[in-house]
Amino acid sequence: MTDFAATKARFHLPKDVIYLDGNSLGPLPKAAAGRMASAVTHEWGEMLITGWNRGGRDGAGWMAMPTGIGDRIARLIGAEPGHVVMGDTLSIKVYQALASAIEMRPDRKVILSDSGNFPSDLYIAQGLIQSLGRGLELKVVAPEDIANHIDETVAATLITEVDYRTGRLHDMKALTAKAHAAGALAIWDLAHTAGATEVDLAGAKADFAVGCTYKYLNGGPGAPAFIYVAPRHAEVARPALSGWLGHEAPFAFDLDYRPGHGIERMRVGTPPVLALAALEASLDIWDMTTMADIRARSIELTEAFVEGVEAACPMLTLASPREPNLRGSQISFRFEDGYAAMQALIARGVIGDFRAPDIMRFGFTPLYIDVGDVAKAVDIIADVMNRRLWDRPEYRKKARVT
Amino acid sequence: MTDFAATKARFHLPKDVIYLDGNSLGPLPKAAAGRMASAVTHEWGEMLITGWNRGGRDGAGWMAMPTGIGDRIARLIGAEPGHVVMGDTLSIKVYQALASAIEMRPDRKVILSDSGNFPSDLYIAQGLIQSLGRGLELKVVAPEDIANHIDETVAATLITEVDYRTGRLHDMKALTAKAHAAGALAIWDLAHTAGATEVDLAGAKADFAVGCTYKYLNGGPGAPAFIYVAPRHAEVARPALSGWLGHEAPFAFDLDYRPGHGIERMRVGTPPVLALAALEASLDIWDMTTMADIRARSIELTEAFVEGVEAACPMLTLASPREPNLRGSQISFRFEDGYAAMQALIARGVIGDFRAPDIMRFGFTPLYIDVGDVAKAVDIIADVMNRRLWDRPEYRKKARVT
Repeated sequence: MTDFAATKARFHLPKDVIYLDGNSLGPLPKAAAGRMASAVTHEWGEMLITGWNRGGRDGAGWMAMPTGIGDRIARLIGAEPGHVVMGDTLSIKVYQALASAIEMRPDRKVILSDSGNFPSDLYIAQGLIQSLGRGLELKVVAPEDIANHIDETVAATLITEVDYRTGRLHDMKALTAKAHAAGALAIWDLAHTAGATEVDLAGAKADFAVGCTYKYLNGGPGAPAFIYVAPRHAEVARPALSGWLGHEAPFAFDLDYRPGHGIERMRVGTPPVLALAALEASLDIWDMTTMADIRARSIELTEAFVEGVEAACPMLTLASPREPNLRGSQISFRFEDGYAAMQALIARGVIGDFRAPDIMRFGFTPLYIDVGDVAKAVDIIADVMNRRLWDRPEYRKKARVT
Repeated sequence: MTDFAATKARFHLPKDVIYLDGNSLGPLPKAAAGRMASAVTHEWGEMLITGWNRGGRDGAGWMAMPTGIGDRIARLIGAEPGHVVMGDTLSIKVYQALASAIEMRPDRKVILSDSGNFPSDLYIAQGLIQSLGRGLELKVVAPEDIANHIDETVAATLITEVDYRTGRLHDMKALTAKAHAAGALAIWDLAHTAGATEVDLAGAKADFAVGCTYKYLNGGPGAPAFIYVAPRHAEVARPALSGWLGHEAPFAFDLDYRPGHGIERMRVGTPPVLALAALEASLDIWDMTTMADIRARSIELTEAFVEGVEAACPMLTLASPREPNLRGSQISFRFEDGYAAMQALIARGVIGDFRAPDIMRFGFTPLYIDVGDVAKAVDIIADVMNRRLWDRPEYRKKARVT
């Protein structure tokens, strides 16, 4: 069993704060400052260009970081080793996965997604469809209807496993099987599942998966994204973003592109070395646990939170699935004055966030949130809600970025 | 006049090294370690999600960093303020520029480039052409022939201003004018010119420009790229990579993409905050100079280097243009055993690099390389070459990454 007191001790959390927003931006691993200082001063400063061959904490070279770190992520998402690579942002990785997938189903016209998907995935699909100009269609249906719309017209499903607003969890295995039965490919966005729930990409036979590392994986603001391509597609998927480092032999400087082997072809440009170094510090903490332990503790925390808040705050309506197996690692409540209420909570040190129109969102991250934190958060929420502290004018101003 | 002794004092350079490879990876600004520590410990660690609104060194918020830093780059490349944005890698920025440009010339089929372009730009064009599948053609001609191939079939030229091997400098203004006269758009890759030569994007009427910040701009390994879109196209160019942060209202979470205004639409995903923080430390040094001063000093340094090496090393053949106005800020020599010779030089502390088949490449970066460094480098090169030190077996092993 994971020693969660030990993992918690590895994070810096601001004083007097209960941080229930690790689903938006994970907090700082204490070791990240030292790792970053070493990457900057020792590696960049002293190694200079030789860092590409001998930099990185293990000395394997900066060039090897995207796949080396990819393997550490692979363990957390049930991916086969050697089939995850780091780089770019989640939007870019969605583009890569989608562009490859629709080319593998040239006779099909539909990209199927749902209205619970994060909008950026839909934007990327819309942009790609417009670029390609060959009559592709993005079909966006209600989350609960998505299975009913998987048919022989669908080239690929593009689904975020956990809804960023409500935490509703799709059944990856069942939807992937349904997609395959219809001859479609399944692309999974793990933004709100990687590090949050038990993901079994290999077991579910997912075709492509993408995700970010600045949420549950605590890689820091703007930390790099990852992409997974199933081994059976690894030598088939054509990289639409055919960049230098995805070439079979980047340093041959050939004028013609030849895709690299396997997941290497999903590399694009120069790897973000410093950002990857910060992520390493977080992955060291992830090495102290398993996703099974995380999931068990997450359910314990969210159950306690729902029970406590519902008992104390009848004005809040649960927006997340009540059944823990149907949700990720967040709990959302609907409340008409949710924006102001969240501001009032933040002023009291309970950090969640707000998503329009009325969602108060709280993330649960067992690496650094324990049952004591949940009990304290429930007490503060009860106090703020029942004393109507959210009704004060200072909490009703709108933020620039929520 | 710039105080180049003062700028040099702001860099950390390893002991006993003359670093003539700033055209591959710029060295560490001494202030970068402190700036990075502050971004990690103070901003990420203490501000957490509120950093998006109030992080960054100026407190304008992490979200504002891509355009705020873009404006600082704009000054160095002759771009209009408000028309440069940071993010992603150079390959991604090439893709964005090219995808937008060819859509603005829907009846034309040719993307024109030259064999002196960096291969990644060609790879990206090849990948995009294959994705679009509408008969576009990448025409790659000799660098000196490119003007002769600009005609009414050309949708866009895709040219790297300075050849990464020889340092040969294209005439941006003349080629852009020629492209416009033929109705084509001009995309300029500034990888080897930003921070190296005087670039005047606005004066040359360039349509799009892209570049990286880890070479002459000293942003660190894998530092973010930039893109420029001419003001006259800013509300016209459709972003093919239509990501969340390029949306007109990212935090409205609409299901449909609407491009943001101007250069904002070329943002894609979450900005790489930590990497941008490192870059800020370098741009503070850039604030101490002008590109006119840099260019004058660069010519002084390269002229001294060419004269010294040619006088002492008859076995080396100048591969760069002899006329300083026709080259960037690097000097290349051809030598059959160039790989081994470069290894021997590196062993003696003169750091350049090698590009197949026979190019020994040296970058000149006035911010931290002075005439004394050049004189010392010439002496060491003369010694190594004339004593045939490169002929020792230990220098003949091939590196993994050159």
